[in-house]
Amino acid sequence: MLGLMQDWPLLIHKIIDHAGREHAHRPVISRSVEGEMHFTDYGTVRERALKVAKRLEKDGIRLGDRVATLAWNTWRHLETWYGITGIGAIYHTVNPRLFEDQIVYIMNHAEDRILLLDLTFVPLMEKLQDRLPTVERFVVLTDDAHMPETKLRNAVPYETWIGEVDSDFAWHSFDENTAAGMCYTSGTTGNPKGVLYSHRSNVIHAMTAALPDMLGVTSKDRVMPVVPLFHANGWSLAFSVPMTGASLVLPGPRLDGASVHEILETQKVTCTAAVPTVWLGLLAHLDKTGGTLTTLKRVVIGGSACPRAVTERFERQFGVEVLHAWGMTETSPLGTVCSITDDYAHLEGEALLDIKMKQGRTPFGVEMVIKDDADRLLPRDGKTFGRLKVRGPAISRAYFRGEGGNPLDAEGYFDTGDVATIDEFGYMQITDRAKDVIKSGGEWISSIDLENLAVGHPDVAEAAVIGVAHPKWDERPLLIIVPKAGKEPTKEDLLAFMQGKIAKWWMPDDVVLVPDLPHTATGKIQKMALRDRFKDYRLPTA
Amino acid sequence: MLGLMQDWPLLIHKIIDHAGREHAHRPVISRSVEGEMHFTDYGTVRERALKVAKRLEKDGIRLGDRVATLAWNTWRHLETWYGITGIGAIYHTVNPRLFEDQIVYIMNHAEDRILLLDLTFVPLMEKLQDRLPTVERFVVLTDDAHMPETKLRNAVPYETWIGEVDSDFAWHSFDENTAAGMCYTSGTTGNPKGVLYSHRSNVIHAMTAALPDMLGVTSKDRVMPVVPLFHANGWSLAFSVPMTGASLVLPGPRLDGASVHEILETQKVTCTAAVPTVWLGLLAHLDKTGGTLTTLKRVVIGGSACPRAVTERFERQFGVEVLHAWGMTETSPLGTVCSITDDYAHLEGEALLDIKMKQGRTPFGVEMVIKDDADRLLPRDGKTFGRLKVRGPAISRAYFRGEGGNPLDAEGYFDTGDVATIDEFGYMQITDRAKDVIKSGGEWISSIDLENLAVGHPDVAEAAVIGVAHPKWDERPLLIIVPKAGKEPTKEDLLAFMQGKIAKWWMPDDVVLVPDLPHTATGKIQKMALRDRFKDYRLPTA
Repeated sequence: MLGLMQDWPLLIHKIIDHAGREHAHRPVISRSVEGEMHFTDYGTVRERALKVAKRLEKDGIRLGDRVATLAWNTWRHLETWYGITGIGAIYHTVNPRLFEDQIVYIMNHAEDRILLLDLTFVPLMEKLQDRLPTVERFVVLTDDAHMPETKLRNAVPYETWIGEVDSDFAWHSFDENTAAGMCYTSGTTGNPKGVLYSHRSNVIHAMTAALPDMLGVTSKDRVMPVVPLFHANGWSLAFSVPMTGASLVLPGPRLDGASVHEILETQKVTCTAAVPTVWLGLLAHLDKTGGTLTTLKRVVIGGSACPRAVTERFERQFGVEVLHAWGMTETSPLGTVCSITDDYAHLEGEALLDIKMKQGRTPFGVEMVIKDDADRLLPRDGKTFGRLKVRGPAISRAYFRGEGGNPLDAEGYFDTGDVATIDEFGYMQITDRAKDVIKSGGEWISSIDLENLAVGHPDVAEAAVIGVAHPKWDERPLLIIVPKAGKEPTKEDLLAFMQGKIAKWWMPDDVVLVPDLPHTATGKIQKMALRDRFKDYRLPTA
Repeated sequence: MLGLMQDWPLLIHKIIDHAGREHAHRPVISRSVEGEMHFTDYGTVRERALKVAKRLEKDGIRLGDRVATLAWNTWRHLETWYGITGIGAIYHTVNPRLFEDQIVYIMNHAEDRILLLDLTFVPLMEKLQDRLPTVERFVVLTDDAHMPETKLRNAVPYETWIGEVDSDFAWHSFDENTAAGMCYTSGTTGNPKGVLYSHRSNVIHAMTAALPDMLGVTSKDRVMPVVPLFHANGWSLAFSVPMTGASLVLPGPRLDGASVHEILETQKVTCTAAVPTVWLGLLAHLDKTGGTLTTLKRVVIGGSACPRAVTERFERQFGVEVLHAWGMTETSPLGTVCSITDDYAHLEGEALLDIKMKQGRTPFGVEMVIKDDADRLLPRDGKTFGRLKVRGPAISRAYFRGEGGNPLDAEGYFDTGDVATIDEFGYMQITDRAKDVIKSGGEWISSIDLENLAVGHPDVAEAAVIGVAHPKWDERPLLIIVPKAGKEPTKEDLLAFMQGKIAKWWMPDDVVLVPDLPHTATGKIQKMALRDRFKDYRLPTA
């Protein structure tokens, strides 16, 4: 027997309809790519999104077509997401930080029909457009006055383009499982793979993200996503913020410490979100200028592990609560947020900071487990680490065009590729990437723990630890060091430094000094390349 | 093209799985019907709900079967909801405050196969059981030690009944639109009609209810639903509280001021919810005893309009935030909550209280409009009032067995039967029931506004206003008064009192004094009966 509740599919346009109706005058503030500040509101964003939808139809875009964006966080980028999804087309966010070959690969793989791009990226696309045969037209996110001379195919300024239609348009309706958005993951190996969000997953995820123990967004907040919309579905903020009626502040292309500080203060931001690099930049700027944070209450930090000093300084020096978060493109992306429950509410000082270093807890809608290599559940004791796996309505079950095969295990869990512990109160902490863990005699050694320890040595600029073949233990850790300029620490120095801080059997079997380490486009150490380079390395213990 | 996110149906068992896994040790505290306080946690509630599910199957209960409950808010009642829905059966909450004939009618209409009942209701059911042929067994929510001698069919104490199975059971899986719960609305006319919630509607509604601008439930809260689970789906608290990991405090059968105060204080409740009557009782008790509220932060008040003095005293005298709410059985039930946005954040004193008298704003997931009799949208100006209509995923589209026909208008809106205004910032205020509005010369007069005004007169105990036929104006208002003991206000007195406080054309055409007014089982004035009694009344102006 079915219930007798209304059929009300979870479609993305309902979010902007809600914001446009119930929070019509709430500010949407952007730093434009042209340079000026720009002020609008949800009522107007909705009107213009309707124009985008109508205009896309006029260009022949239909249900299921991919429309790419290569853009910073501005009101125009926001409008395009709602316009594109409002007719059942798919926003495909292209990350400008990818290598050019990767950009060409993913746009061809997605078969993007239109690209909406910021002024910043016109030169890049002029260079690449001949390799992008599926793109029929390039819409530059600016007005006629700022439109450059360009040879981009069918190029048109966005304002002229949407100016050709009015907003008298009805959103389309369709199954809530219809694809809505696409974002490619840039693995360290192989080609990027496309994650395909649905209307349902985005709407459910936005509701989850707004919950009090997650981001806790209220209509009184002024939320600034510094994290770009092209990074892991923009951490859902393009949906969860309008859904709750909070004001949006969009920082445009300027993400340096001074620019972020200026907009935080002048626009009275109460909640913001970005990767640690951005916050290191902001804190360095505040150090230099003696600046303060007068309106900011919460900062969400994810994308990579948040350094302890960042959390400590935000909370103690500036009185800003840090919400350490974990997720990935495949999880829409929020998987955990480290908000403090009653279980740890009594902690203070370093003990509290220890907990805040964890990536946090799952909300309703994310089922999270750690498992061993034989897919057996591991205990939640805060010590045992295993493969981190997740299930939920906003978590991938496959990649676009079936690339990479089936990423789910027999119980339907998605393997995150991370290795983590979960403690008795449900707090998860990433300890490593699964492929970087060193498997020594059937036990796992965390490469990240060793690296974090080694970089604490005063002579070390950067450190990597990889597993190297060993006849008895299968693998043993090799510590690879980039020394600071003019320094040359010895193996004995380094191991003595680590002594007593880790289990004896975790101690690296050898140390190698190198002038530099290989990195990915997004700044991560390429462990694969290192493993390849040292694959014949003979450990002194072997 | 469909998205590639996981198929994860929104089923109710996922809520208790989440609470049992992520908040296993969080307290669930009840005042038992037997009298003692009872302490358990979500991990245990989940274990025992699994037993309920397994035991129901053993009794032959299957997908779609109705299992009724006639019970106060306790841990056992909570367990039964999860156990029943965990196999796809339907919890049917029976309201003990209904007239006996209504209870018999709804249980037969629902064809309940099992009734789980509190000790309180054993005598009532012994009296009624012969008229309830579909009920195969009566499970008394107690243990063997407290089980009374009873002639109820196949009677068994709950603890013995679930003790016959273990918790080794897997929840069933099915379409998320499967019916999960049933609650009859007791209209003032005709037979009660059954509202049928689905798993999807309950889960989405619980997420909505927990949002920051709604109830804002965090895992640090200790939430006490004084509102019974049998009242309008228990205001979703049996779902939204475990979903967020807040502690639950369940007051059992004792809802008087002293008992409510004791449990609020001893169990450190931070958030609670009930109808105004309960709060009048609590405030009277605090007056008498000089008691205080030391842990309570928020109180949700709905079911009927919250008196201004209640809001004022909670906020000013006790420092407790009042969240005025509106909803109905057919809306799962939360439709609006009056939380203060930036638009009114600058208000203080009486001006703020004026806003808090409104029923509040809709969250994402409730589309709310006011329309005239010709179904045209009316403006949001805070003055124009019209039929209040709603759409959303947790709002009824029909009643069980099609009773009452199609309640939706051509655009799919459910007609709430209320008349309301909506202001420019989206704040809704109920002005009347549609059937009680007086239609004078094509314009509407709010009977409730006139009644509220009249009861302010020092000699008036209770007041009702109905429309009476008028040859020129179709209808004109008649004020019907129950005077206070020993008082006999005149028509002139009363009209003089109202003069200047309302539009001239709203002034009642006549006043009648009566010794008492007819009421429904739930304490509302039976306007229908009054209209019937005064249908031939001749107004002096006619």
